[in-house]
Amino acid sequence: MSRFWSDIVHRLTPYVPGEQPALAHPIKLNTNENPYPPSPRVVEAIRRELGDTGETLRKYPDPTARALRETVAAHHGLRIEQVFAGNGSDEVLAHVFQALLKHDKPIRFPDITYSFYPVYAQLYGVAFDAIPLNAEFGIDIDDYRADGGAVLLPNPNAPTGRALSLAEIEALLETNPDSPVVIDEAYVDFGAESAVKLIDQYPNLLVVQTLSKARSLAGMRVGFAFGDAALIEALTRVKDSFNSYPLDRLAQAAGIAAYEDDVWFRETCAKVIACRDRLTGELQALGFEVVPSAANFLFARHPAHDASTIAASLKEREIFVRHFKLPRIDQHLRISIGTDAECEALIGALRAVIVG
Amino acid sequence: MSRFWSDIVHRLTPYVPGEQPALAHPIKLNTNENPYPPSPRVVEAIRRELGDTGETLRKYPDPTARALRETVAAHHGLRIEQVFAGNGSDEVLAHVFQALLKHDKPIRFPDITYSFYPVYAQLYGVAFDAIPLNAEFGIDIDDYRADGGAVLLPNPNAPTGRALSLAEIEALLETNPDSPVVIDEAYVDFGAESAVKLIDQYPNLLVVQTLSKARSLAGMRVGFAFGDAALIEALTRVKDSFNSYPLDRLAQAAGIAAYEDDVWFRETCAKVIACRDRLTGELQALGFEVVPSAANFLFARHPAHDASTIAASLKEREIFVRHFKLPRIDQHLRISIGTDAECEALIGALRAVIVG
Repeated sequence: MSRFWSDIVHRLTPYVPGEQPALAHPIKLNTNENPYPPSPRVVEAIRRELGDTGETLRKYPDPTARALRETVAAHHGLRIEQVFAGNGSDEVLAHVFQALLKHDKPIRFPDITYSFYPVYAQLYGVAFDAIPLNAEFGIDIDDYRADGGAVLLPNPNAPTGRALSLAEIEALLETNPDSPVVIDEAYVDFGAESAVKLIDQYPNLLVVQTLSKARSLAGMRVGFAFGDAALIEALTRVKDSFNSYPLDRLAQAAGIAAYEDDVWFRETCAKVIACRDRLTGELQALGFEVVPSAANFLFARHPAHDASTIAASLKEREIFVRHFKLPRIDQHLRISIGTDAECEALIGALRAVIVG
Repeated sequence: MSRFWSDIVHRLTPYVPGEQPALAHPIKLNTNENPYPPSPRVVEAIRRELGDTGETLRKYPDPTARALRETVAAHHGLRIEQVFAGNGSDEVLAHVFQALLKHDKPIRFPDITYSFYPVYAQLYGVAFDAIPLNAEFGIDIDDYRADGGAVLLPNPNAPTGRALSLAEIEALLETNPDSPVVIDEAYVDFGAESAVKLIDQYPNLLVVQTLSKARSLAGMRVGFAFGDAALIEALTRVKDSFNSYPLDRLAQAAGIAAYEDDVWFRETCAKVIACRDRLTGELQALGFEVVPSAANFLFARHPAHDASTIAASLKEREIFVRHFKLPRIDQHLRISIGTDAECEALIGALRAVIVG
């Protein structure tokens, strides 16, 4: 507290990211990172941009990230004017709240979802209604019929992992033609269908994606928004009033290379999906109830064991999973999909905790 | 324009950064970049973090940038709680506007200064008074006596290059004990004295710095704020409500290495300063009036030649300087200090334009 703070600072309850343990070899299943490294082409591209002397680092990066946006536009069959690039999808979402979600009517998002959404709303003074998920932790699209307010849905949702079908997204768009509909597709590549293909039909649709998950680049901070050129212009106007150059030279080079290696991308996703499906069965065999997941994590509870106790026991074994002390989900754990070996170590540890 | 835009988007006039020409070998004296590359240790540090496979890039960076902040704190004789790190000083300044400068009274900054300041003010709804520079383009500290509003001064000022003495900064702090005083030291290492050493005495003092200029890392986007722990906490609260991880892994590694090579840093600054002083004399010999500069650029006008015409003639020769179409300074050019060869090429081209 300080008299020098602006009013808003007193009112903020900042987002708390998952712990980054300072251990030599933790089994880190708490921040939905990809267990596999990025494509070797990413490493090559960074080395190329760096050169022998780092000469280019003295110069500002392209503030418009044109080459990166062109690459991503081509990948998705979009025009460059339909692509916005930012410092991870977190920064992109922040700009979305300020540029597109602040209107007279409250926006709507699920009560159980990415816990950064209410934080953004607070930062920018955006009123919101948190719409309860159904008993199976699913989103009922009927709950989001037009009321004039904007809609923000993650697909798949986090931390539940549940996905909506493209038909459901389209139904949502049909009933909400007059307000922005934002689909946060951070985890889409692990089993859901992207709404990007609907962009040309719906000028109010904005799709947000990231390179942090399926493309193994959480460490490089690259995210995107895709939508009608007018929506992208709103984001660009805010970005250019905030920070001209949010993406450094190496991040831009890394992002381009990540899109150029589609084989690596698909193989990585396939490995994560196979491990997720195996882990689901193993958790169920230990008595866990597991929410069906289309993401790179599982959301599970054990009817006979307290979630925070399990998380603490795992942590003693240097295995980190995420536990949210929030209404309705305080008996659940969110478990990121690791390598096969990490998932085996997790199951071994859980067996010791649960079976004894 | 779009009905999906938040109100604020309609009102924004975004900042326009200097042109990044798509030429093979432009002489780029328009964005105050350092003509010399970063320390070889920076390149080594990035290579080390990258490793053979880029394995660490799959993981989120440290959201608190602890190792970087510790390095910089030690360099300045500060505690880590007195250091904030962000995605270039532009992002840091944006957070400063939102976290520390939005109060009932208008803030004050010079009428001729970094043209991003009024843009931030617009983005966050911060009222401001632009205080005219004196006839010599200097800041009169007496114009900033306490009126209850916060003060934001760049030292040296841009685009003028003029510096305030530390005694003047201290006089400003003495007369403004009840409101934040922010000193933007983007160019301080080229000839002004840093106010960092006053931080322990003045809990309302915030100093902003960047690695983009003296440390040759514009391409990597690293900036800082230094001040009392309560001021830093305000920035951290806003940052953690906006984007947990604004600095990627390679940027954090680069920033640490840049501070570890003080010899490189000092030699680079000395070369830029020597070239600036030589260029000042050569411009004066061509009839230019040059504002005394403590920065890595010169602000100059020619009494007999229109500034925009000179800029256009230089551009035809693939030499880029910055011209602002703004009141009081539309006959001035801002010329970044390049290598000795670039400055010679500039003088040759100017001689052709001016003398014929």
